[in-house]
Amino acid sequence: MIKNIAIVGGDLRIVKLANMLEKENYEVKTYALEKDQEITNKANTLQECIKDADIVIGPLPLSSNEYINTPFSDNKVKVDELIENLEGKTFIAGQIKQEIYEKAEGKNIILLDIIKREELAVLNAISTAEGAIQIAISETPKNLHANNVLVLGFGRIGKVLSKMLDGIGAKVACEARKTTDLAWIKAYGYEPINLIELKQNLNRFDIIINTIPFVVLNREMLQEVKKDALIIDLASNPGGVDKVAVKELGIKFNWALSLPGKVSPITSAEFMKETLLNMFKEIENK
Amino acid sequence: MIKNIAIVGGDLRIVKLANMLEKENYEVKTYALEKDQEITNKANTLQECIKDADIVIGPLPLSSNEYINTPFSDNKVKVDELIENLEGKTFIAGQIKQEIYEKAEGKNIILLDIIKREELAVLNAISTAEGAIQIAISETPKNLHANNVLVLGFGRIGKVLSKMLDGIGAKVACEARKTTDLAWIKAYGYEPINLIELKQNLNRFDIIINTIPFVVLNREMLQEVKKDALIIDLASNPGGVDKVAVKELGIKFNWALSLPGKVSPITSAEFMKETLLNMFKEIENK
Amino acid sequence: MIKNIAIVGGDLRIVKLANMLEKENYEVKTYALEKDQEITNKANTLQECIKDADIVIGPLPLSSNEYINTPFSDNKVKVDELIENLEGKTFIAGQIKQEIYEKAEGKNIILLDIIKREELAVLNAISTAEGAIQIAISETPKNLHANNVLVLGFGRIGKVLSKMLDGIGAKVACEARKTTDLAWIKAYGYEPINLIELKQNLNRFDIIINTIPFVVLNREMLQEVKKDALIIDLASNPGGVDKVAVKELGIKFNWALSLPGKVSPITSAEFMKETLLNMFKEIENK
Amino acid sequence: MIKNIAIVGGDLRIVKLANMLEKENYEVKTYALEKDQEITNKANTLQECIKDADIVIGPLPLSSNEYINTPFSDNKVKVDELIENLEGKTFIAGQIKQEIYEKAEGKNIILLDIIKREELAVLNAISTAEGAIQIAISETPKNLHANNVLVLGFGRIGKVLSKMLDGIGAKVACEARKTTDLAWIKAYGYEPINLIELKQNLNRFDIIINTIPFVVLNREMLQEVKKDALIIDLASNPGGVDKVAVKELGIKFNWALSLPGKVSPITSAEFMKETLLNMFKEIENK
Repeated sequence: MIKNIAIVGGDLRIVKLANMLEKENYEVKTYALEKDQEITNKANTLQECIKDADIVIGPLPLSSNEYINTPFSDNKVKVDELIENLEGKTFIAGQIKQEIYEKAEGKNIILLDIIKREELAVLNAISTAEGAIQIAISETPKNLHANNVLVLGFGRIGKVLSKMLDGIGAKVACEARKTTDLAWIKAYGYEPINLIELKQNLNRFDIIINTIPFVVLNREMLQEVKKDALIIDLASNPGGVDKVAVKELGIKFNWALSLPGKVSPITSAEFMKETLLNMFKEIENK
Repeated sequence: MIKNIAIVGGDLRIVKLANMLEKENYEVKTYALEKDQEITNKANTLQECIKDADIVIGPLPLSSNEYINTPFSDNKVKVDELIENLEGKTFIAGQIKQEIYEKAEGKNIILLDIIKREELAVLNAISTAEGAIQIAISETPKNLHANNVLVLGFGRIGKVLSKMLDGIGAKVACEARKTTDLAWIKAYGYEPINLIELKQNLNRFDIIINTIPFVVLNREMLQEVKKDALIIDLASNPGGVDKVAVKELGIKFNWALSLPGKVSPITSAEFMKETLLNMFKEIENK
Repeated sequence: MIKNIAIVGGDLRIVKLANMLEKENYEVKTYALEKDQEITNKANTLQECIKDADIVIGPLPLSSNEYINTPFSDNKVKVDELIENLEGKTFIAGQIKQEIYEKAEGKNIILLDIIKREELAVLNAISTAEGAIQIAISETPKNLHANNVLVLGFGRIGKVLSKMLDGIGAKVACEARKTTDLAWIKAYGYEPINLIELKQNLNRFDIIINTIPFVVLNREMLQEVKKDALIIDLASNPGGVDKVAVKELGIKFNWALSLPGKVSPITSAEFMKETLLNMFKEIENK
Repeated sequence: MIKNIAIVGGDLRIVKLANMLEKENYEVKTYALEKDQEITNKANTLQECIKDADIVIGPLPLSSNEYINTPFSDNKVKVDELIENLEGKTFIAGQIKQEIYEKAEGKNIILLDIIKREELAVLNAISTAEGAIQIAISETPKNLHANNVLVLGFGRIGKVLSKMLDGIGAKVACEARKTTDLAWIKAYGYEPINLIELKQNLNRFDIIINTIPFVVLNREMLQEVKKDALIIDLASNPGGVDKVAVKELGIKFNWALSLPGKVSPITSAEFMKETLLNMFKEIENK
């Protein structure tokens, strides 16, 4: 049974997560979160924090350089120092880099990347969709309601976003390549647009939201887009839009990344908590 | 048959409206809109603009002092001057004050206030609802999805807003007094809350949106509201929230007025156009 | 405070209602419901049943001839006999005829017709809409989903039915006359069709559902309807469809009356109970 | 380019399909459909029908014994005879048995089973869901609206059915095993129920609809179900319900199979046509 949890570093979501885990009756010790006022059980050292823990939780993303991310702390924690102290532990964090997996090898550490959990990706799609809707409302002089909106891609974000846009009253079209996805788009009541027919359809839309992680809206495509349209790109680097062309063509463009943490940090923490509880159950049942 | 339309003054919505009426094949002359680049048929004088018009259209709101509103013009047009030139005409504008009706009396002028048209009020409720949703997403650290949202009042805005919130995935409760409204709330699938049971229910909601034009959220009520809730007030002066109390209690509060013109000026112009076309038909059929 | 309730006669809905009122902790006595096995507190005579009652409840509809409706009883109760025993009482039943009001006059009886309560009409519209959807699915060889469905009239049933049809995935158009209703139809996301443009639009629809209580689909209109369309008429006598013409033209037609009692007697009883509780409160507050 | 299509045997859906393909400008020849009046291009023999065909289409299901299914014909066509005449052809039919694949081996015949196309399965889920809703409305004395409905399984039918039930106003809960599916259920706004918590939740539901193709509702589970609940089983043999136990426990039960063909044969034909056109494109692009 998992009971003692150590939390080391992290942003507002991790702070909220610490409180939520306490409410679920876990014993939570924290380190490198001391600047937040809500945090209670503060360990004085990394060692003290981790020592009795059944599970150690780290930042999301874990690190961007040789230190782990600790925006709520004056303490700096080196990745190497953390690894040394994890011997025999299960450590859960987000966006753990390949080099860190390599460092942990042979040290009897179980590293789990919460970002790879599919249920978290599904839940985060909800927050991303809401963020996209906020942008779409605020950056266009027209209503979403009764307006033609095109969603590129029918993966996780495409599915949730289409549902919300439809729910708010937009006329939603979704682009996909696979016949199965096109059947789903029809089943959900949106207009299906096959990728091979995308080009000739682009000029019907006031708002185009991309979720595909490669450049589908290249210069040739962008030339078909209405000059007063808004393009929102939700796909991470390199995104789905030719950034140079979109600028040259004077089309309004918003590359909106990492929306869940920005738009709804508390809900994001809740989704992380739910995912962690699933992970705990799986660990306990092994 | 209405054919010639004179448009005098007004903001961006009136500019867009002028273009839309031209696309519907009306002959449009404008005055006091000359600073907008899209405007074509510019009359040199007020008289020239109005002379042959079947209908004269003015700003929305018409005036806030002795001049009519002309933000797109260097020309100042006195209300009195306008009235003098309207003899024998039908004049349509927004929020026409009682004193102006009095001035027009006995002068063979038909004054019509477009703001009093119920279909426009219904359509504007769509824009108001979208604006409220944008605020709700951006000013809370939680998702709307799966969150408890309370709408006070089930009039035009309450109805459209509840539908959109539900469509985006919120758990919507609506407050009303009348048993019929409560039955409608149930029929639409929201949770009905009778005004007399409002107080004991307030602490369940993260977001409360008022549409009732009198102070329903007084200090006594506000004391029941969650400290980290967001209150959005969509009701015009005096609004539905005790402004002093809400500040003293430290509850996040946004008094959001005139959203349609701010959030979606182009759609607002379209709604005005649709309403005008209805008015034209009624005038022609008299 | 209302405490003792007498129930005299009625169909399955009244039986269910009796049980529901007991669960709400009312003292319920019944007469002329004795053939149902669930009924407990059976009075031996009409007088015994009514004697101590704060409120007396009768059938819905109350009567179709000189006797009140008592399908669950071998006892026959004359309307006149009932009236004689109601002196000093408040009596609630459904579809109380004018002649019965006249008979009760001057006898210190308060007669209330539950059918005239608007909240009940709204709630019953839910059941009617479900019944219409069941008919539409079972009597057409096509899906409702993605199909063009026309609803005539945007009153209570029109509103609820359109919402459900839209929810099931149909492409919904609604006919109305008033500009305000047309604006509401647009706000709710359906296609608005003005009555004056109805004729030229009729041939687009596979399913047409009427809710208007006068003959809108006359022969001239019906000649525009697709030969393989289905027309469902939910309006009570004379209905909204020329019965002779629809038959001669060979169009599939279903005049579906009194759906709530047929499709969902238990939910109908619940709706009656809710309405009664509203009436009780109003009586108590007088 | 596919141009000439031979259609051999089949039910009403195949008749409709023949007409639809003609409207798409294919040259269609038919055999063993001669008893339907709409059918035009009737070949006199199987050989004549197939001879010039680019594609041959057969019944769905293809056969239940040594003959193929030809309900619209007096001609009997042996499976073996058909196979002999398909040399060099591409043949598309439904539910082609393993033994028929074996018979065709080495004969230069391409056999394609349309039932295995995932887009058809998705589209047919729409018809199945509508059929289930019709049953749910007609076989319960309560409304679906505001009622608690449980859907077992969140595959194709589960997804479409939940959306429709939600759209009609039911309170929808979905059972699933996988954490990802449970996250999707939450994202779509239904109540997620983990299989391991199913048993203790069963007694909350008035309607339970199974889509899982193994016996999830065994006797132990069924004992938890309300006595006046309705269970609809949409899963093909053996279904998801212990048939003996459900009968002994006196729970209302409907095993509803092959709904698309029954509820909406014309839409089913359309879905087959769309799928065929996808298949044609893939064949042409090879």
